[in-house]
Amino acid sequence: MLRIRVIHGPNLNMLGVREPEVYGSLSLNEIDNRIRAHAADIGVQVEISQFNAEGEMIEAIQAARESADALVINPGAYTHYSIAVRDAVAAVGIPTVEVHLSNILSREEFRRESVIAPVCAGQISGFGAFSYILGLDAAKHLTEEKG
Amino acid sequence: MLRIRVIHGPNLNMLGVREPEVYGSLSLNEIDNRIRAHAADIGVQVEISQFNAEGEMIEAIQAARESADALVINPGAYTHYSIAVRDAVAAVGIPTVEVHLSNILSREEFRRESVIAPVCAGQISGFGAFSYILGLDAAKHLTEEKG
Amino acid sequence: MLRIRVIHGPNLNMLGVREPEVYGSLSLNEIDNRIRAHAADIGVQVEISQFNAEGEMIEAIQAARESADALVINPGAYTHYSIAVRDAVAAVGIPTVEVHLSNILSREEFRRESVIAPVCAGQISGFGAFSYILGLDAAKHLTEEKG
Amino acid sequence: MLRIRVIHGPNLNMLGVREPEVYGSLSLNEIDNRIRAHAADIGVQVEISQFNAEGEMIEAIQAARESADALVINPGAYTHYSIAVRDAVAAVGIPTVEVHLSNILSREEFRRESVIAPVCAGQISGFGAFSYILGLDAAKHLTEEKG
Amino acid sequence: MLRIRVIHGPNLNMLGVREPEVYGSLSLNEIDNRIRAHAADIGVQVEISQFNAEGEMIEAIQAARESADALVINPGAYTHYSIAVRDAVAAVGIPTVEVHLSNILSREEFRRESVIAPVCAGQISGFGAFSYILGLDAAKHLTEEKG
Amino acid sequence: MLRIRVIHGPNLNMLGVREPEVYGSLSLNEIDNRIRAHAADIGVQVEISQFNAEGEMIEAIQAARESADALVINPGAYTHYSIAVRDAVAAVGIPTVEVHLSNILSREEFRRESVIAPVCAGQISGFGAFSYILGLDAAKHLTEEKG
Amino acid sequence: MLRIRVIHGPNLNMLGVREPEVYGSLSLNEIDNRIRAHAADIGVQVEISQFNAEGEMIEAIQAARESADALVINPGAYTHYSIAVRDAVAAVGIPTVEVHLSNILSREEFRRESVIAPVCAGQISGFGAFSYILGLDAAKHLTEEKG
Amino acid sequence: MLRIRVIHGPNLNMLGVREPEVYGSLSLNEIDNRIRAHAADIGVQVEISQFNAEGEMIEAIQAARESADALVINPGAYTHYSIAVRDAVAAVGIPTVEVHLSNILSREEFRRESVIAPVCAGQISGFGAFSYILGLDAAKHLTEEKG
Amino acid sequence: MLRIRVIHGPNLNMLGVREPEVYGSLSLNEIDNRIRAHAADIGVQVEISQFNAEGEMIEAIQAARESADALVINPGAYTHYSIAVRDAVAAVGIPTVEVHLSNILSREEFRRESVIAPVCAGQISGFGAFSYILGLDAAKHLTEEKG
Amino acid sequence: MLRIRVIHGPNLNMLGVREPEVYGSLSLNEIDNRIRAHAADIGVQVEISQFNAEGEMIEAIQAARESADALVINPGAYTHYSIAVRDAVAAVGIPTVEVHLSNILSREEFRRESVIAPVCAGQISGFGAFSYILGLDAAKHLTEEKG
Amino acid sequence: MLRIRVIHGPNLNMLGVREPEVYGSLSLNEIDNRIRAHAADIGVQVEISQFNAEGEMIEAIQAARESADALVINPGAYTHYSIAVRDAVAAVGIPTVEVHLSNILSREEFRRESVIAPVCAGQISGFGAFSYILGLDAAKHLTEEKG
Amino acid sequence: MLRIRVIHGPNLNMLGVREPEVYGSLSLNEIDNRIRAHAADIGVQVEISQFNAEGEMIEAIQAARESADALVINPGAYTHYSIAVRDAVAAVGIPTVEVHLSNILSREEFRRESVIAPVCAGQISGFGAFSYILGLDAAKHLTEEKG
Repeated sequence: MLRIRVIHGPNLNMLGVREPEVYGSLSLNEIDNRIRAHAADIGVQVEISQFNAEGEMIEAIQAARESADALVINPGAYTHYSIAVRDAVAAVGIPTVEVHLSNILSREEFRRESVIAPVCAGQISGFGAFSYILGLDAAKHLTEEKG
Repeated sequence: MLRIRVIHGPNLNMLGVREPEVYGSLSLNEIDNRIRAHAADIGVQVEISQFNAEGEMIEAIQAARESADALVINPGAYTHYSIAVRDAVAAVGIPTVEVHLSNILSREEFRRESVIAPVCAGQISGFGAFSYILGLDAAKHLTEEKG
Repeated sequence: MLRIRVIHGPNLNMLGVREPEVYGSLSLNEIDNRIRAHAADIGVQVEISQFNAEGEMIEAIQAARESADALVINPGAYTHYSIAVRDAVAAVGIPTVEVHLSNILSREEFRRESVIAPVCAGQISGFGAFSYILGLDAAKHLTEEKG
Repeated sequence: MLRIRVIHGPNLNMLGVREPEVYGSLSLNEIDNRIRAHAADIGVQVEISQFNAEGEMIEAIQAARESADALVINPGAYTHYSIAVRDAVAAVGIPTVEVHLSNILSREEFRRESVIAPVCAGQISGFGAFSYILGLDAAKHLTEEKG
Repeated sequence: MLRIRVIHGPNLNMLGVREPEVYGSLSLNEIDNRIRAHAADIGVQVEISQFNAEGEMIEAIQAARESADALVINPGAYTHYSIAVRDAVAAVGIPTVEVHLSNILSREEFRRESVIAPVCAGQISGFGAFSYILGLDAAKHLTEEKG
Repeated sequence: MLRIRVIHGPNLNMLGVREPEVYGSLSLNEIDNRIRAHAADIGVQVEISQFNAEGEMIEAIQAARESADALVINPGAYTHYSIAVRDAVAAVGIPTVEVHLSNILSREEFRRESVIAPVCAGQISGFGAFSYILGLDAAKHLTEEKG
Repeated sequence: MLRIRVIHGPNLNMLGVREPEVYGSLSLNEIDNRIRAHAADIGVQVEISQFNAEGEMIEAIQAARESADALVINPGAYTHYSIAVRDAVAAVGIPTVEVHLSNILSREEFRRESVIAPVCAGQISGFGAFSYILGLDAAKHLTEEKG
Repeated sequence: MLRIRVIHGPNLNMLGVREPEVYGSLSLNEIDNRIRAHAADIGVQVEISQFNAEGEMIEAIQAARESADALVINPGAYTHYSIAVRDAVAAVGIPTVEVHLSNILSREEFRRESVIAPVCAGQISGFGAFSYILGLDAAKHLTEEKG
Repeated sequence: MLRIRVIHGPNLNMLGVREPEVYGSLSLNEIDNRIRAHAADIGVQVEISQFNAEGEMIEAIQAARESADALVINPGAYTHYSIAVRDAVAAVGIPTVEVHLSNILSREEFRRESVIAPVCAGQISGFGAFSYILGLDAAKHLTEEKG
Repeated sequence: MLRIRVIHGPNLNMLGVREPEVYGSLSLNEIDNRIRAHAADIGVQVEISQFNAEGEMIEAIQAARESADALVINPGAYTHYSIAVRDAVAAVGIPTVEVHLSNILSREEFRRESVIAPVCAGQISGFGAFSYILGLDAAKHLTEEKG
Repeated sequence: MLRIRVIHGPNLNMLGVREPEVYGSLSLNEIDNRIRAHAADIGVQVEISQFNAEGEMIEAIQAARESADALVINPGAYTHYSIAVRDAVAAVGIPTVEVHLSNILSREEFRRESVIAPVCAGQISGFGAFSYILGLDAAKHLTEEKG
Repeated sequence: MLRIRVIHGPNLNMLGVREPEVYGSLSLNEIDNRIRAHAADIGVQVEISQFNAEGEMIEAIQAARESADALVINPGAYTHYSIAVRDAVAAVGIPTVEVHLSNILSREEFRRESVIAPVCAGQISGFGAFSYILGLDAAKHLTEEKG
């Protein structure tokens, strides 16, 4: 069974509470439930975690080399400056889908750049929690295509 | 029944022939067949066209105001400079999903900017023809959410 | 009798419908009526067209060389990148007034630059439909001054 | 009766003498006469002053809050750097029209930016003394529209 | 017999009339005659067209894939921003020579960049109508070298 | 008794009236009263003035060399471009505290730079009239520390 | 009783030892004692911590949502690039005062930008340990003003 | 007898007191005496003034049109941003020599640009009070050359 | 005996596995063995660690103040943005040698800048594992020179 | 008989050996033979030299004022920074054709700028040794046109 | 007797011939005669040379360490990029005056920067051959001041 | 026996005399002796030269193709702009180590860029004369690794 690792970046544990006009009113828990439900629907296995610390996030990505077939990652604020997260994704070498709740390209200048995007297979942004659902589909598709 | 307008930008009629290492080996016709098949699966109606001319593309977008509930658009090279296409999308006011075959964020500098993204609901890039499939799902989701 | 060619650029056919908080609630038809009424008042003859296509707009500008004494042009989104429209205006060599409904200098960064302005006699922006009325007066003045 | 305050910025007292190939051969006095004549024609009352000092110009703008219904201002060189003049215009809150004798967008790089434009209703440039005439019309129009 | 497709970009139909101090006093017709004469001299077949519309120019370039062995293109103003024209040249994959009447590297800043050059074999600029003559020779040379 | 010179820059005389959503609803008079009350509380003597003219503001700063022990200055719009005010502060050589009503770092790009800050001891911004109260405390602290 | 959370960023545990000509000769312990003494004086309760790790600092900020009424934060080097810390401050939504020991605006170019400032109420920098004392006063003021 | 107008800009009245390691220990009075002595030596008449206010400096420059044959100007901080002073120099049209006490090209980045230099005949900087002596010689030379 | 602290930054634990065409095929373990062997050869004592977390890396650097005479550090991705790591190095004040496996100056634009280099004694890059060997020699040399 | 001076810049003596995938496999000697053969064909006299030293290249250009009617120059690396070579070309005042073996506009960013191009009549690049053949034709054409 | 070394940079041997509208109609020989005459007048000894080659110019500057008391240098085009000439001037450590015939600050953008100025005592530009005369006076003054 | 070519760039002949606080007090001769001694120790043959002239330095690099197995080069000021030296290194194709006495990354902005680094194997900077010793070791290592 296909194993997909889902990783949420910093401050995503504040969802529902944090600027709901930007990020929506769902809590992270509710989003995780949706992710699990969809994973069941499409027959893939998911492991989900949220990290505020860059170092822990890097280690979770590194570990996915062994424990997962694909990665769905919302790097949060690290999207914009963490070259260390980028290097971790590049080092892991499994198909990676970058997702964002909001459309980062229509926000502040500094949020329009992703230092991580160039080492991902693709990017999905702007569809709220549904970005993760599309991300699972994309990850599954990438893995099957490769297989 | 939900109506989704799919618009392909300039040079996409060259697919299969044009730089296949970047854009894949499927012809536009084959992609359109996949789009139609998926539309049937998820119960939406699609109308698909390809335009090399900016003016015609603008008019097709304007017309979608009456004839469609959502827009899935791959603006091709116009992504990077056509403020006129952007203004057309903004004027139409129906949910719009921007899609790209390749991951534009990992290509040449000038391809990393989308002048159209800020007026779209979201963006999906890097999954080849599957970007359109995800785009249909996203468009359907946006419309249902609004309804 | 003085002949003034009035040219509207892309998406101006969406006026009234398109972002009315920016562009006002008048339709293009209503603006054209005001232009025609003022032209009659000041004794000039006007020919008015709207173009979404850059190529057609260029050809209309080129044709004005023979058929008009002055040009009043709202290049819409082409203002910001169409060097081809700029070159057409420069090639025609009749006095040209650039007009804009909104004050482009108080909007998004990319709307603050006009690649066309340097080859026009002058620019009028920010007065809604009244920008065209002032544009007719200016065009008339420029022509009389030259004569 | 509508009261319009006309303010000329630094070095405009040198008109006729100063680089006539750029600014024309009319003296400021002659321009003021044309402004007064046109004001009489359209039934508005004008008060006109020229200032070389930024501080005095700011105070004249501030005073217009009480003594005028609209402002027609040619900020001269202050256009390009005086954020203090900009703040004065913003503080006054009456409709303001920025005018320029020359087409500032076709001149040196540093003259293409107006720090004042974003707080004005609109801008008219490039028509010589006639820019002021159009400015009066615009100011009258803005005031009537608001009224 | 070698087939060379010659494509003139926007506003080149105004030659002779348009800024003769920059572009020379020959009409496009006269230039085309010189091109045809030289083609006869060196034993190649030419087809020549001028386009103001970007979309039509793109389609002519695409069609050259079947109907020509090499391309000589003066993209006019599109040189500086039309990534769509660039993509068409890249998609066609036959040797392409970019030519310009004036030396674009000694003109305004914005004319010094060519977004099309990186996908051409080479560039010839600054020799007036003779740039096309050299362009034919270069195109012939490139094709023979490849054969 | 410690003497602190408080200097308000251009347009601060418009407070209460000028964009109250940015600058608050207190008039400058009310702010001055609060400053005087706090000065009495902490046992320092204050002299307060407001200047619209850059030259007069420079001379007041220069005069503080003799008549004050520390400077609390809100340079208003001059913050962003008046190198002359900066040089005056540097020339005076007494401890200087820069204060701002609004948080200039969260406003327009051009308001985020202070050309004056590098020659001040420190900066306090964003606390409305209370910025001045903190500024007095800071000025007193700096003077005592030096003494 | 008002609760203020004081957070010191990376390397502030090296104070007294680290570049004393820039940061002063007080140890962090001595600064904390002054903060506690002043808190007692003005009747507020403080909790103080220092973090070298970005992730832990983010979590402490998040926790302040429940346990504090205001935040006084010296983000140290994170000031200049940690968008994750910025997002944590924005997510918490209680009044936040940014403080710095040195006047960051008079130091190296890269220290002049604060990515955190735009989501704080205000900023105080340049007064050494006294910046924290002013920060407490400001935090108290902001909370009372809101209450 | 040749008449040379010498104009000192803002804060030059602080010389001797102001940052003597940069500007030297001579007072402005002592510099003026040296200027007068040298003027007597070379047989020219000088009028010398210092201005802190930009507006007064502009008016003194304008007046030189009638009362002087050449201008020697040290614009002080206005060197770097006063386009109004630049326009005054350009309007006056008599030979102008820009002088600086310090070598502005070896100082802070913002002091390396002179917005006034392009309208002066030449520039002399870095020789302390002796820059004015060389400036007088240069002004005399320019006038004789023209005559 | 001289004590040298060797610190490896994020993702270096992936060596051998991670992009071997860039970073070589040696594992970190093998590199550490070479470092230890060379340390024995030149008679210095080494302590070696690898950190993915910025905070832990900062604390290890701070601790070196007491436990080491010199630092050899490969900051990995933190090289390019971690001002916090830079500040830790600056705070520690022992001679520091920055090393890189690859020649960072011949890679992507963002890898060409080191925010850490300015506070190190020197930099060695491009020699694979041998960069560390040279780094030990350099650290030894620096310490002896100082002693 | 027309005399054309051909000048090769630095490192062109390494042709055939140096990066043949960029510069081709012909030696400079072979290229010179082709140049001489073509010169004979078109009836012009050529003198050819290669220079590694900027100063010698400048002097050869200066000498061409007397000894040649036109210049064909491949400035090699000096293309991108030698303003001294540019000034020599400008000083000589005979028609100059800039040639390059590779298409410099499709290479590294720093190779896309030519400081020399603005003082040449035109530029030919990208056709390998054939660039020189076209350069001779262009130089001959320019001279005849002038004559 | 004071010894002043005068060094002319590349292409100055073309004076009189080279763009006389910019550089004047005097030959270098005539300028040298004026320099020698003035040197005699003020009682200093001069040695004058012109160099096209950067390396020779560097060596002449180095040699001045022994053979001269001051340097008057017109670095010509090397002004704008030769850091090697800059380093030579810095290494020599005798007072250096940079002179230019034309006012480099009013010319092309790239001529407005001098990489050499920061290591010179001062700069004199814009007075034609008279710049050298002023340069001798300045050099003499600098040496006497030091003595 | 391995042959290493050591090349010193411009102004390095001034060592000991030139800014000793930056470059140290050793003369070039003393450094060369250390280089020769170390070469003897590690059993390699060295040839050492210093060049002020760019052209001669280029030719020495070219010659190393035949006469050396590796290159140790300190390009001095040419590091920052000599693309011609870069091209020579690239053309030679033997392993090249770039060395610097000072840590160029902690100096002036313009010294932080090396146009030569991208074509070298690696870079060593900041260790004074010891940089050359490390450079010899690195060059030997590179050659053995290749062999």
